[in-house]
Amino acid sequence: MKKIIRNGTIVTATDTYKADILIEEDKISAIGLNFDRTDAEVIDASGHYIFPGGVDPHTHLDMPFGGTVTKDDFESGTIAAAFGGTTTIIDFCLTNKGEPLQNAIETWHEKSKNKAVIDYSFHLMIGEINDDVLKELPRVIEKEGITSFKVFMAYKNVFQADDATLYRTLLAAKEYGALVMVHAENGDVVDYLINQALAEGKVEPIYHALTRPPEVEGEATGRAATLTGLANSQLYVVHVTCAEAVEKITEARNNGIDIWGETCPQYLVLDQSMLEKPDFEGAKYVWSPPLREKWNQDVLWNALKNGNLQTLGSDQCSFDFKGQKDLGRDDFSKIPNGGPMIEDRVSILFSEGVKKGRISLNQFVDISSTRGAKLFGLYPQKGTIAVGSDADLVIFDPNCKRTISSETHHMAVDYNAFEGMEVTGEPVSVLVRGEFVIREKRFVGNAGSGQFLKRKKYGETSLIEEISNEGKK
Amino acid sequence: MKKIIRNGTIVTATDTYKADILIEEDKISAIGLNFDRTDAEVIDASGHYIFPGGVDPHTHLDMPFGGTVTKDDFESGTIAAAFGGTTTIIDFCLTNKGEPLQNAIETWHEKSKNKAVIDYSFHLMIGEINDDVLKELPRVIEKEGITSFKVFMAYKNVFQADDATLYRTLLAAKEYGALVMVHAENGDVVDYLINQALAEGKVEPIYHALTRPPEVEGEATGRAATLTGLANSQLYVVHVTCAEAVEKITEARNNGIDIWGETCPQYLVLDQSMLEKPDFEGAKYVWSPPLREKWNQDVLWNALKNGNLQTLGSDQCSFDFKGQKDLGRDDFSKIPNGGPMIEDRVSILFSEGVKKGRISLNQFVDISSTRGAKLFGLYPQKGTIAVGSDADLVIFDPNCKRTISSETHHMAVDYNAFEGMEVTGEPVSVLVRGEFVIREKRFVGNAGSGQFLKRKKYGETSLIEEISNEGKK
Amino acid sequence: MKKIIRNGTIVTATDTYKADILIEEDKISAIGLNFDRTDAEVIDASGHYIFPGGVDPHTHLDMPFGGTVTKDDFESGTIAAAFGGTTTIIDFCLTNKGEPLQNAIETWHEKSKNKAVIDYSFHLMIGEINDDVLKELPRVIEKEGITSFKVFMAYKNVFQADDATLYRTLLAAKEYGALVMVHAENGDVVDYLINQALAEGKVEPIYHALTRPPEVEGEATGRAATLTGLANSQLYVVHVTCAEAVEKITEARNNGIDIWGETCPQYLVLDQSMLEKPDFEGAKYVWSPPLREKWNQDVLWNALKNGNLQTLGSDQCSFDFKGQKDLGRDDFSKIPNGGPMIEDRVSILFSEGVKKGRISLNQFVDISSTRGAKLFGLYPQKGTIAVGSDADLVIFDPNCKRTISSETHHMAVDYNAFEGMEVTGEPVSVLVRGEFVIREKRFVGNAGSGQFLKRKKYGETSLIEEISNEGKK
Amino acid sequence: MKKIIRNGTIVTATDTYKADILIEEDKISAIGLNFDRTDAEVIDASGHYIFPGGVDPHTHLDMPFGGTVTKDDFESGTIAAAFGGTTTIIDFCLTNKGEPLQNAIETWHEKSKNKAVIDYSFHLMIGEINDDVLKELPRVIEKEGITSFKVFMAYKNVFQADDATLYRTLLAAKEYGALVMVHAENGDVVDYLINQALAEGKVEPIYHALTRPPEVEGEATGRAATLTGLANSQLYVVHVTCAEAVEKITEARNNGIDIWGETCPQYLVLDQSMLEKPDFEGAKYVWSPPLREKWNQDVLWNALKNGNLQTLGSDQCSFDFKGQKDLGRDDFSKIPNGGPMIEDRVSILFSEGVKKGRISLNQFVDISSTRGAKLFGLYPQKGTIAVGSDADLVIFDPNCKRTISSETHHMAVDYNAFEGMEVTGEPVSVLVRGEFVIREKRFVGNAGSGQFLKRKKYGETSLIEEISNEGKK
Repeated sequence: MKKIIRNGTIVTATDTYKADILIEEDKISAIGLNFDRTDAEVIDASGHYIFPGGVDPHTHLDMPFGGTVTKDDFESGTIAAAFGGTTTIIDFCLTNKGEPLQNAIETWHEKSKNKAVIDYSFHLMIGEINDDVLKELPRVIEKEGITSFKVFMAYKNVFQADDATLYRTLLAAKEYGALVMVHAENGDVVDYLINQALAEGKVEPIYHALTRPPEVEGEATGRAATLTGLANSQLYVVHVTCAEAVEKITEARNNGIDIWGETCPQYLVLDQSMLEKPDFEGAKYVWSPPLREKWNQDVLWNALKNGNLQTLGSDQCSFDFKGQKDLGRDDFSKIPNGGPMIEDRVSILFSEGVKKGRISLNQFVDISSTRGAKLFGLYPQKGTIAVGSDADLVIFDPNCKRTISSETHHMAVDYNAFEGMEVTGEPVSVLVRGEFVIREKRFVGNAGSGQFLKRKKYGETSLIEEISNEGKK
Repeated sequence: MKKIIRNGTIVTATDTYKADILIEEDKISAIGLNFDRTDAEVIDASGHYIFPGGVDPHTHLDMPFGGTVTKDDFESGTIAAAFGGTTTIIDFCLTNKGEPLQNAIETWHEKSKNKAVIDYSFHLMIGEINDDVLKELPRVIEKEGITSFKVFMAYKNVFQADDATLYRTLLAAKEYGALVMVHAENGDVVDYLINQALAEGKVEPIYHALTRPPEVEGEATGRAATLTGLANSQLYVVHVTCAEAVEKITEARNNGIDIWGETCPQYLVLDQSMLEKPDFEGAKYVWSPPLREKWNQDVLWNALKNGNLQTLGSDQCSFDFKGQKDLGRDDFSKIPNGGPMIEDRVSILFSEGVKKGRISLNQFVDISSTRGAKLFGLYPQKGTIAVGSDADLVIFDPNCKRTISSETHHMAVDYNAFEGMEVTGEPVSVLVRGEFVIREKRFVGNAGSGQFLKRKKYGETSLIEEISNEGKK
Repeated sequence: MKKIIRNGTIVTATDTYKADILIEEDKISAIGLNFDRTDAEVIDASGHYIFPGGVDPHTHLDMPFGGTVTKDDFESGTIAAAFGGTTTIIDFCLTNKGEPLQNAIETWHEKSKNKAVIDYSFHLMIGEINDDVLKELPRVIEKEGITSFKVFMAYKNVFQADDATLYRTLLAAKEYGALVMVHAENGDVVDYLINQALAEGKVEPIYHALTRPPEVEGEATGRAATLTGLANSQLYVVHVTCAEAVEKITEARNNGIDIWGETCPQYLVLDQSMLEKPDFEGAKYVWSPPLREKWNQDVLWNALKNGNLQTLGSDQCSFDFKGQKDLGRDDFSKIPNGGPMIEDRVSILFSEGVKKGRISLNQFVDISSTRGAKLFGLYPQKGTIAVGSDADLVIFDPNCKRTISSETHHMAVDYNAFEGMEVTGEPVSVLVRGEFVIREKRFVGNAGSGQFLKRKKYGETSLIEEISNEGKK
Repeated sequence: MKKIIRNGTIVTATDTYKADILIEEDKISAIGLNFDRTDAEVIDASGHYIFPGGVDPHTHLDMPFGGTVTKDDFESGTIAAAFGGTTTIIDFCLTNKGEPLQNAIETWHEKSKNKAVIDYSFHLMIGEINDDVLKELPRVIEKEGITSFKVFMAYKNVFQADDATLYRTLLAAKEYGALVMVHAENGDVVDYLINQALAEGKVEPIYHALTRPPEVEGEATGRAATLTGLANSQLYVVHVTCAEAVEKITEARNNGIDIWGETCPQYLVLDQSMLEKPDFEGAKYVWSPPLREKWNQDVLWNALKNGNLQTLGSDQCSFDFKGQKDLGRDDFSKIPNGGPMIEDRVSILFSEGVKKGRISLNQFVDISSTRGAKLFGLYPQKGTIAVGSDADLVIFDPNCKRTISSETHHMAVDYNAFEGMEVTGEPVSVLVRGEFVIREKRFVGNAGSGQFLKRKKYGETSLIEEISNEGKK
């Protein structure tokens, strides 16, 4: 049955206007004034914004890490995402050195099958480049629709790749049409600093931050940017946290290098002092890269505003405080890295960004949805409210207030890093491809209704741009 | 009568999609698939883009300068603009020191009345700040809807204001909600260099460029940016030409200063060597600031791509080669500054920008239309294709080729600075508020149909953003 | 009679070594080990450093300012300088617009004649460039030996010159071989801010600092640097106080512009908070540019260490707290600017710089003596300890401690901005051209024994470099 | 017997003056006017400069590389050095991973014993940091007097150390008082580029340059600087070649990091185009990092002038064109890296630097001699002309012209990279510790007369600074 969403204020990365939306099957078929049809269910959205469903470009669901597994899988994780206004995620598929990439992809399809309630896609981790890997890449891009590869410059002896692998991944991405993503920290130095701290009996959570100083992030970001320029390729820096890294990205962009930067809610709102909370509470605030000194928050907000950073990922990677985080009670280096973030990503950007005047409403949509969809080959199917696009919509009440708490959140973990924080604005209803997943703040979806999305190549013009391209030749 | 534009590819600053547009009276009332109504005229736009009408934030029509008057008035100028796909202009209203601002505004209304074929607004020049001026400003903003003020740092003894005036204008703009615009060149130094060149018998057009070196533009841009930061105000730098100025704007933005930059088609395509053309031909290329060495073009394009420059103005200011430009045949300083540019602004950005892969199609719309409308308080009435906006639309053939020439252009001057240049892409039809002004490349409009636009204050949220703002308190 | 200074540790801008110095007449005639002559007076300097006499490139003695006159004249001022280890000063000769420069020079000769106890020279202020001034300049340089000109960018309606005057002075300096000095603050903006503060009833000394923010110094410094590059001339920025200005100087130097920077003891040690002292005490800390936030001190020290700033001037400009400073008790803008600094300049640099490990011992000599002598055409007569140079020597005890106080200082004013501050290191004896002026911390000189020094042109190679230059042609 | 050098013009890093020098035994015992003694041999130096003997901080004599050995050993190499005005070298002692450092040091003593005609010291290469190495370091510094360690970031699988080794070396250097030196190129990327080029059949010498682009040098320089800052240690970057690297060093210095930079004559004078010379001639110009585009020369000269680079090393590493360089005739990667440079280092700096006005005469002495001696713990024994210092002196004719040629040079190789280049200025006589090694341009020294120099720790104040330091506690 058709649906009409009436009287809402539609917001895209560019526009803000009042109109009705007509949904036929899974698509938006019309936007206009005073739609009045008897063959359609009418949903009233008066006094609400309608945003395109959020696109979270950075999640780790059902992921093994340091001998444990993230608490949220594709079911609980995507339900929480939906509550938070996110309708598409791109999850990281971890590979193992020496094994075919295809194995890892199949494993990830297994993890997600029959579970997700929103749509999803995969990024692929590259640990090492060799002839086998190079041979497999074109198929991964063309057939699997996986068009982004992540390289870790940190986590020595685990995920860390050397500079040759990073460089060759950049070259391959250029050749085949993919986007390289990088976790930018100097893993060699971090590894030494950790060992040194432990040797000196420094085992508390705060040493997690102190052994990953901003300099090592800035350095690695600059290195990756330089190699990108040299390879004439494209780069996306995940979870940017500090001035040092923002400067490198900005400088590279000004030099014409094709580089993009993502930050995460935690870096915009929390700070390093939280790792010093007593009774091991600091472990709840262990991310890599770590939280920074508070003044970096202004740098990150300004970079989002000016377009030197472009997206907000959740880096969802949840572990229980009891039973998982406490693996590191006597050794901060054993604290599983990461936190639950998939649910509050959009709210925090709205409440702290739009409501506090740091970014505009349209920038909010761009950062939380549109830009991610475009960079990762999902647009125009995802990431906007336009005729012909999937009807992934968030009906959002911009004025209601909510206190974040693990008691009420929908993620499967036993704590929330923003516990007690009040945010303004909340999704009321969320549709994915025209069907309600959240309706009046209640979950009404079905596990397995989420679809895997094959993505377009990096920079590939959409079909509808062909008009112009014909003339290009 | 209603109109339906069918089968076109709609392009906004964010989106690109195929859909039909329904126009009722002067507004867009719906966008959707397969509109089929008998009460509407149907216009077929298959194979064409539909852009929001261009917004040219920088024109000088019917303007006195150096003892002569620009050739194009509000009639010929706006007809040419319409041919080029521009449906809104903001023209500079010149004031005289010691006279009420209101006098100048009335003069400009006189100039434009019954002439314009597209919509228009005014910026107001501020030559000097004194108590009278300060007293008048609130009324100008509130009643006249003129919410942007221009200060000249050059043209000593003519338009040039001192730094105190610039600073006080910034403070007033902050207080009352206006945007300050600045012509950034160090007029003192330019004045000396001109006199010195003339004293040495250097009278040819090339000395126009050599006496206004990029350093004086970079310096003044940096000075204006610093004063803006100090005043915690907002600034728009007109006609940015060179690396020196782009660097200052970029640095200021990165420091959180609210500063915007405009460049012009001539600086993206032409270069300083053209002033050396023989037989006084160089005079056709006399703009202030002047054309620069060719490598600056890449800097400007990259700045547009990265968002460090945001708009493209024509700086339309046309003088005949014969009878006007030749006032300076024996003295470059007497060559009237400026050129005919209103007609080709959009085409050149599309052809040189989009077609050559320097900017995306959506960036093209943002730069040529949307951003100008937003910065100068015209959005959402102007600057986008959205339900509820004015039906200012350009039906654009992206593949046809056209050779620019004064023989075929519609401006009233006897030369074109791009003579012989081939561009790809051309407006086929242009509507203003739902009525054709250009139809199938022929003018079908009426002098006087253009309306004066009172503009919103700088940064004023539109009515439709109020939902959120209620909650803000 | 000849003199031998035995067993001291000689320090130059490069070297540190133990040796004896033989003085014949007014010159150093030999340096060596174990000098043993019966025809010479022997002075023992065991346990002491021997520095070249300090060169203070920036003093205002007997200078009218704001209706009063600086307290120290060429007698008290140079006696205090000698006590502090300074044996040469360069004082600013103020000119009046419309009068011949020569008048001002003669006035300054009058002021200094029969008074100075150390050697001295003059800089010349340029308020305005016109044909008369241009005609006079070559003579001033060639005949008067005055080879440096100062331009004020601040003090509107008093000393302030416009950019055309600055630019033309730079051009003239290039042509004739002089060094341009600049007081870099945007006088227009400062003037507005002062008037505005006063209008709001903000009259206390702290508003002196708040109406001259660092941005206006940074801006003016960048402007002067740009004009210097454009003129391909040379510039010396006096009294640099803040990060904003240091950055501009550094950037210009890195771009190959011939620019130098001076800071002053007060900016290295004192900070803006001192202007808030109660009971009008803040007036003692009124300099222009003003004291800055404390963190700028590190920036200045690092710039001295790295060579981005090169000299330390005292900007000696002393007014009594009672009877002079209190002219501004009800209006900060009437507080005479400046303070007594000529005596402690060298001590503070040694104590805070060398003793605290911020600069090396050789850098101390370079900054306090050698570089100033070289930049202003006094080297090798002044500024070093080398055979053939004037025997201007300071025998310095590096370990004794002294508390600065107006009770014990030798300047004619009733306060000292460093009152109560303990410094380590003090001159024991000071010789000028081989004669003691200070001996065992007592004054033994004669008013009028100081000589006026005609200086060489900027960049002029000394006679003794001619060997090489012959081959250069 | 004593010696008097009469009538020369003595030049130090600060001073230029005419005086006689008295030498007793191996030291300078006095400097003065008109020395007249019958117990001394008198050498007339009229019309000549007297410089302190050059200190070359970067040589590779008798060094194995890629299956061959550098042509010049400590005899031919130091004779050539002496002819060129260099009286002290510091050679790189190569270590082998897994072997005690002491073995390598003894090998190097073997190589140099009974051969050198000038004084010499060693730097020590660090390939890997482990507990054995850490245990050995203090002894190396204290007993062997080797106080500088070099880490290679390039030459993968040969010399290359990882970032952890670099970082730990920096920490150890900080703790024990040594200076870390770094060869800054990203070896991973270079290794890939080389393999790729060879795989594509690109075997000519020019590919040596194209596979080591300036970006990889800039990147590695920035990385090393960041790690230095993080370790709060000290760094010396050898053979800086390009703008990218200079920028990183300058930025780090401005941020207060203790970092120094060396360039080499070839980068100041030659450029990348020379690798394209036909008939494999390009192989003569193969250095790592490679020669750069010509515009970088200005950047390097400006950095020397401003003090952002401080020293000039020869990087002497000579291989015959026939029999050694041609190992790489079919594969550029097999061309032994390096060239003969020890002899012309000083001449080129004088001729291209001083004579062409790029640096001053005093800066020339600082760069070629004094600064190296100070940074590497040899001052004041070496590096200056002062009473008490070693009588290492160069009597230099600044006007004679000489054409560089392998036919006349004294190095043991069959070509000279500057063949045919005319230089102005040449050493006439050279003394080491008071004894002639070169006299009137003829070699008069003895193999083995050169002494090994144990060096002071980094930053260690010399004995003669103790006066002040006593007071410091």
